[in-house]
Amino acid sequence: MASQTSNNMPPGPPLPDMFARYTDLVREGLAAAVPHAELTDLNALLQYHLGWTDQEGNPAASGASQGKALRPTLCMFACEALEGDLSRALSAAASIELIHNFSLIHDDIQDQDLERRHQPTVWALWGQPRALVAGDALQTVGDLAMLRSASLGVPLETTMRVSAILTQAYLEMIEGQCRDLSFESQTTITTEDYLHMIACKTGALIRSSMEIGAVLATEDEDVARAFATFGSYLGRAFQIRDDYLGVWGDESATGKSSDNDIRRRKKSFPAVFALERASGTARDDLLRIYSQEELDDSDVDRVMAIMDELGAPQYAERLTQESARRATMALEDVTLPAWARGEVDQLVDFLANRQF
Amino acid sequence: MASQTSNNMPPGPPLPDMFARYTDLVREGLAAAVPHAELTDLNALLQYHLGWTDQEGNPAASGASQGKALRPTLCMFACEALEGDLSRALSAAASIELIHNFSLIHDDIQDQDLERRHQPTVWALWGQPRALVAGDALQTVGDLAMLRSASLGVPLETTMRVSAILTQAYLEMIEGQCRDLSFESQTTITTEDYLHMIACKTGALIRSSMEIGAVLATEDEDVARAFATFGSYLGRAFQIRDDYLGVWGDESATGKSSDNDIRRRKKSFPAVFALERASGTARDDLLRIYSQEELDDSDVDRVMAIMDELGAPQYAERLTQESARRATMALEDVTLPAWARGEVDQLVDFLANRQF
Repeated sequence: MASQTSNNMPPGPPLPDMFARYTDLVREGLAAAVPHAELTDLNALLQYHLGWTDQEGNPAASGASQGKALRPTLCMFACEALEGDLSRALSAAASIELIHNFSLIHDDIQDQDLERRHQPTVWALWGQPRALVAGDALQTVGDLAMLRSASLGVPLETTMRVSAILTQAYLEMIEGQCRDLSFESQTTITTEDYLHMIACKTGALIRSSMEIGAVLATEDEDVARAFATFGSYLGRAFQIRDDYLGVWGDESATGKSSDNDIRRRKKSFPAVFALERASGTARDDLLRIYSQEELDDSDVDRVMAIMDELGAPQYAERLTQESARRATMALEDVTLPAWARGEVDQLVDFLANRQF
Repeated sequence: MASQTSNNMPPGPPLPDMFARYTDLVREGLAAAVPHAELTDLNALLQYHLGWTDQEGNPAASGASQGKALRPTLCMFACEALEGDLSRALSAAASIELIHNFSLIHDDIQDQDLERRHQPTVWALWGQPRALVAGDALQTVGDLAMLRSASLGVPLETTMRVSAILTQAYLEMIEGQCRDLSFESQTTITTEDYLHMIACKTGALIRSSMEIGAVLATEDEDVARAFATFGSYLGRAFQIRDDYLGVWGDESATGKSSDNDIRRRKKSFPAVFALERASGTARDDLLRIYSQEELDDSDVDRVMAIMDELGAPQYAERLTQESARRATMALEDVTLPAWARGEVDQLVDFLANRQF
C-alpha cells in the first residue's frame, strides 16, 4: 500500500488547550446563528454538515467529530489575548466557522468527495443541486451572523468593518479555489504559484479570523495588522502541513483517504514540488501519470517514490517550519500576557507539526 | 409543435420608461462593484455572465442582452418615487442585481440549463466546479457592494439595515430554490405550496428591492412596509407570468426554449395546477408522463392539451391579475407624486402582461 510510511511517524503535538476552552462558546455562537424559521427544508442538511445530527436528523453520537473549529478558536484567542470582551466575539467567530463550512460543502461537490470527517458528504446524501443551495444558505447564514455582532454590543462601525474584512477574505478564498481548479489541468505550476494560491484559498480566512478577533478587542491598527500577518503565515504552515498529511498522513487520524491526493491527481504541494523538480525519466513518468484519467496503485506508488527521491517530504517540512517561524515573528512586537505568548507557541507548534 | 399557440397572442405592454431611465445608473453601480483585483481568474466568468463580454473576453455586441435589470430598477424607482437621493442607491441596486445573478449561475447548474438570454450558460462553457465558485464569488461581490453604500453617504445604521434586509431576503430565496427542487419528485403540490415557494424563490428578492429603495429614501416605517408588500405581490405576479411564458410564451421573445418547462417536468404553476385539478384519464396521463425520465413531443402535447382543457392558462392569468391588483392596492395609502403613481401602474401592467 502507498500509505505505509505514515505509521512510522512520531505522535504529533496535542490539540492546544485553547480549543477546549472555546468549545462551548463556539457551540453557543453557532447555535444562535444557525436555526432560522425560513430554513425548514435546508436546516436538516446544515445541521448534518455541522456534525450536530446524523443523516436521519437524530442528534449525532456524542463522540462524533464536528471538526477542530480552528477558525473560530483563532478569532476568540486573538480577542482574549488582547484582553477583549469574548462575549462580543461570539457571533463573529460563529460567522467565520459557517463561512468555512459553506466552502467545504461546495468543495466536496467540486472535488466529488464522498466522505468528510468519516461521514458521507452532503451532496453524496442529498444530491448536488440541494447541496449547492445548502452551501449558499450557509454562506448567507454566516453573513447574517457577522452582522448580528452589533446586537452583542460591538459598535456599528466595527461591525461593518469586521463584516467587510470577512467578506473580502472569503472572496479571496473563492478566487483561490478557482485557481486550485485551474491547477488541475496544468503541469507547470511553480512553488510561487502554489504559495499564492494557498494564501488565497486557506490563508485569507485564517488571516481574517485573527484580524477580526483583534479588531474586536483593540483599536490599535498595528496590532490588528500584526495578528493578520500572524494568521497569514499560520495559514500557510497549516495548508502545507495539510498537503503533507494528504500524502503521508495516517488515514485513521486525518479522516481522509491516505493516497487520495495523489490518486485524484491533486496539485497539492508535494505534486507541485515534484513536477517542478523532477527531470529525466522521473519527469516523464510524472507527466504521463498526471495526464491519465485514472491512477492505479502502481501509479500512486511510482509518484510517491519520485516524491521521496526528490526530498518532497523534507522540503514540505522545511517550508512549514519556516512559515511557522515567520508566524511567531509577526507577533514579536505585540505586548501579550505570558499565558497568551505561551499559547501562541503551542498553537504554532500544533499547526505545523500536527498528525491530524 | 407544442408551442404553436404563442404566435396568436397580442403584443404585450412595452418596457416601462423607468427601465431606460435607470440603465446608466445601474451600469455605473455594477461597474463600480464588480472589478476586483483579487478576481483575476473569475472576473472573465462574471463579466461574461453579466453580458459585458463574450466568451473570449471581448466586449459584447452592443445589442447583446444584459437582462431587464428588473430588481435594481425597482430599487431605484422606490427610492426616487419617495424623493430619495438616487446616487445613494447606486451600490444597493447593484448589490441586488449581483445577488440575483449569483442565483442564476447556480440555478443554471442545478437545472442543467445550457442557455440563458440566447447565450451558453457559465457552467456550459467553463464546467460546473468553476461556475459554482463564480456564483459564490458573485454572491460575495454583491454583499460587499451593499456594505459600500456607507461610502455613498448612507448612514451606517441604514447600511446595516439594508444589508440585513437583503441577506435575509436571499436566504428566503435560497430556501425557495430548495423547495422548488423538492417539488421535482412530488405530484401532490397544492397551489398554496406553490405560492409559498415562489414567495420565497422570487418574491423575497423583489420585495427587498422595493423595501431597500424605500428605506434609503425615508425613515417612515409604514411607507417602507407598503413598498415591501407592493414588491411581494409584484413578485408573485411576475413569477406566475414567468411560468405562463415558460409554457405558452414565444421562444424568440423570452430567450427560453418554449416547451422547456414541460419537457423538463418543471413543477411551475401550470403543472402544479394541472396535477391538482386533473381527474380520470387526464390525471393518469399526467402522473405517467411526470414519472418518466424523458418526455417526447407527444408527451408535451398531451400535457398541454390537458392544461388547456382544465383552463390552466386562464387560471394563471386570473391569479396574475389578482396579484397585480393587490400590488397596486398596497401603495394606495402612500403619498406619491403623480409621475410615480403613473409609473407604478405602468410597472404593474408590464410585469403582469409582458410577453418577454
